[in-house]
Amino acid sequence: MKISELSRRTGVPVASIKYFLRQGLLPAGRATAATLAEYGEEHAQRLRLIKALTTLGGLTIAATRDVLGAVDQAESSEGALGAISYALPVPVAGRRPAGDGGKAEEREADPTVGAEVAELLAVLDWQAPGTSPHVKGLTAALEELRRLDAQYAPGELAAYARLAESVARLDLERAAGLDDPVALAERAVIVFAICAPVFELLRRLAQEDQVRRRVAGDGAEP
Amino acid sequence: MKISELSRRTGVPVASIKYFLRQGLLPAGRATAATLAEYGEEHAQRLRLIKALTTLGGLTIAATRDVLGAVDQAESSEGALGAISYALPVPVAGRRPAGDGGKAEEREADPTVGAEVAELLAVLDWQAPGTSPHVKGLTAALEELRRLDAQYAPGELAAYARLAESVARLDLERAAGLDDPVALAERAVIVFAICAPVFELLRRLAQEDQVRRRVAGDGAEP
Repeated sequence: MKISELSRRTGVPVASIKYFLRQGLLPAGRATAATLAEYGEEHAQRLRLIKALTTLGGLTIAATRDVLGAVDQAESSEGALGAISYALPVPVAGRRPAGDGGKAEEREADPTVGAEVAELLAVLDWQAPGTSPHVKGLTAALEELRRLDAQYAPGELAAYARLAESVARLDLERAAGLDDPVALAERAVIVFAICAPVFELLRRLAQEDQVRRRVAGDGAEP
Repeated sequence: MKISELSRRTGVPVASIKYFLRQGLLPAGRATAATLAEYGEEHAQRLRLIKALTTLGGLTIAATRDVLGAVDQAESSEGALGAISYALPVPVAGRRPAGDGGKAEEREADPTVGAEVAELLAVLDWQAPGTSPHVKGLTAALEELRRLDAQYAPGELAAYARLAESVARLDLERAAGLDDPVALAERAVIVFAICAPVFELLRRLAQEDQVRRRVAGDGAEP
């Protein structure tokens, strides 16, 4: 198909398609003339994934390139899941205070928080090394909350973590069950990166419901 | 205290403090000379909140201004929670495809998805009007997933929603219990906006654990 048809099929403007081609996110089409190329179904599929990652997933072009690289290198299903789990950007980490021109001060790590995270992993029997971007991200977030004097009370974090475990189990069920590693990788990207905001929206909606019940004096307990 | 001391106390660089003053996020100090001002504890508290919102919360300056406005206008505790719930930016909505210069195509609403969300609210007995930013955000996200052919199977969304309800209940417990509306509002901002990424990190960590168990052949079931 021509680029105009590819645009129509995917809902991605031609200018965006050309941008993704220039950025190397989308493989070039088969050249049919000096300024014409033919695109196939694989381009449409890849384009839908790029669009999903950059819009719903909120990923930068660089992060999208990393994730697509992990998808393309997937050999086994489990290996693909692991690679993608690490390739996707970690929430929180890397954010800078606005207006400081990127010169965020370096803070030294708080050993109390590191011990708290290690203890949490032990209590939950979760397997993740200290080098995991998720362990580092969680540690950084909890350090920041401690500085804000907004740390979790003992037991609160574990209560959240147990719910997170149930959510992750639903995620894995949705991501599994595909034999082709690349298809599975694409599905995993969608579940891990793109469906994450859906849960956040459900949580916000549930908060709204519970606040409304309090305002109405309906009682917070069900 | 002088601006240098305010910077030292809060860990926010002087340049950032001046930026927040210019942007009207932080009230001016008490002028003690033509180029000197004296800041109080309330400035330190407000500055820690601004820093938290713009870094961990990931809010823009404009969104931070909206949230702070809701905090300042808080009269009753429940009213404050409701105002903040609406003032905080909704995940997903408003994201634009990279590289299209903001000219994202307008899509018409998918009535199937609107009915799906209404049905979900009815099943869960959640109270939220169709005008709620959370209802709109969820609808938009589900429409995008449907276009990606990655919609939730029947029942999957409700399973996620029930877990989200439990998370929201923990959130409300953490946010409640403060008498002073402004203090409660600040606490609610921290819980609603800033602690949200912590849950996402816990979910990612739980995903990592479950992927590792699959790779190790440890079995996915507990």
